[in-house]
Amino acid sequence: MSEFDDATRVSADGAAAIHDGWDINGNANGGYLLALAASRLRAVSGSPDPLSVTGHYLAPGTPGPVQIDATTVKSGRRFNTVTGQMHRDGKPILQATGVFGDLSQMTDDFTHIVGGPPEMPPMDECVPRSPVQGVAHVALNGRLNVRLRPGDESFMRGERKGDAEMAGWFSFADGRPVDTLALLLACDAFPPAVFHIDLPPGWVPTLEYTVHVRAVPAPGPVRCVFRTHFVQGGFFNEDGEVWDSQDRLVAQSRQLGLTPLG
Amino acid sequence: MSEFDDATRVSADGAAAIHDGWDINGNANGGYLLALAASRLRAVSGSPDPLSVTGHYLAPGTPGPVQIDATTVKSGRRFNTVTGQMHRDGKPILQATGVFGDLSQMTDDFTHIVGGPPEMPPMDECVPRSPVQGVAHVALNGRLNVRLRPGDESFMRGERKGDAEMAGWFSFADGRPVDTLALLLACDAFPPAVFHIDLPPGWVPTLEYTVHVRAVPAPGPVRCVFRTHFVQGGFFNEDGEVWDSQDRLVAQSRQLGLTPLG
Repeated sequence: MSEFDDATRVSADGAAAIHDGWDINGNANGGYLLALAASRLRAVSGSPDPLSVTGHYLAPGTPGPVQIDATTVKSGRRFNTVTGQMHRDGKPILQATGVFGDLSQMTDDFTHIVGGPPEMPPMDECVPRSPVQGVAHVALNGRLNVRLRPGDESFMRGERKGDAEMAGWFSFADGRPVDTLALLLACDAFPPAVFHIDLPPGWVPTLEYTVHVRAVPAPGPVRCVFRTHFVQGGFFNEDGEVWDSQDRLVAQSRQLGLTPLG
Repeated sequence: MSEFDDATRVSADGAAAIHDGWDINGNANGGYLLALAASRLRAVSGSPDPLSVTGHYLAPGTPGPVQIDATTVKSGRRFNTVTGQMHRDGKPILQATGVFGDLSQMTDDFTHIVGGPPEMPPMDECVPRSPVQGVAHVALNGRLNVRLRPGDESFMRGERKGDAEMAGWFSFADGRPVDTLALLLACDAFPPAVFHIDLPPGWVPTLEYTVHVRAVPAPGPVRCVFRTHFVQGGFFNEDGEVWDSQDRLVAQSRQLGLTPLG
């Protein structure tokens, strides 16, 4: 079983565990937490694909057992909506709601696309991330093969580009395919784009995170780009796009974060 | 009492009503429904401002009584997260989750803004919307003063600009100020941006709709712009921005809709 499948396994009664090794300095990555919750919601929905999943983060997730409750609020002909909560010892960690369906059954007659995949060199010419990142221990990077667009790693040297954009390649270290569930992780697996502007460095907690899965990814690594256009009042947005090997948009994401000042 | 305050009134036990006159062809506008649900969630939160609210639409909302249940899932020092459901006779209409706080208490030391308000003439030189819109009866337009950027109304004559962008001014017809709750309505109160591309016209149902409220609006009408960059597989996104009279971003929105083909 792949590491990601193992780490997002949920039993029929909602028992699961936050696995070790998907964290930054001991706190589980938010995308991993949403994927874990969505794994349970998806099972309850009976549909193969998350179409849109929203998570509200309530407490940091540390390794160990959790319970993920899930309730179907609407079963439709094509879409099923499920809401739920991940909690431990009565303490809520993540509130999640998603709509699930079967992307392979959606029509595709009309397309209108503005923009395209981020320009960058082939994956092996991009800059690998490693678990040791300065003062941070990003264990997550050991599970993934994330490679940044050359230049985008400059924040590691204390150099900021000035525009809050971060791009790169994403795949799993163990070769597991990137499926629609994995896109919930991919959209939160990169260093924050705000690391490239003159904010004081530090932990940037997420209040809300939504991923729209727009297509089933074709085989191969995906290209991701994240942009922050609005930092004010202690909050920032980060908008993500994920593109597959066929140059098709497979996910859009947005999160509302708190600046280190916020 | 203003029309909007009356239409978003919820009693302490969650009893409320979808009011007449906020609809398109008899179905309540999705932004109004989210504002109505958020009115209840906000009351339960005890905080003045919705910071991020997500709604999942389960059934069309027709005028009449509804019950809005709401449960606090996390009470924090600064933020309170509440989840709930609007339903009628046991049938769910809208699932909503939001995080609430006090925007007046947020720091504002660091700003990074890419872009700005949409360029357009003063409000009185823009094109008013009216309740009678071709074959559609947009009763909502009688409650609002929505004026489109000249040219953006061309879809009414069957002329499509080719780029899916719609902009204009928003205020209430009765002069009620645009507050943070009203921004949840504003971000869904315009004709869909996809009316300007060659999709067959028709009802475009929303699966998911999230609004991030980024600041308390200064007095006066707000300027709104909505863009759709990705239509494929029967789905489209619509991203909105709302700017106040001080040229400050006050809200960002995104919704996942179904095309008339989808």
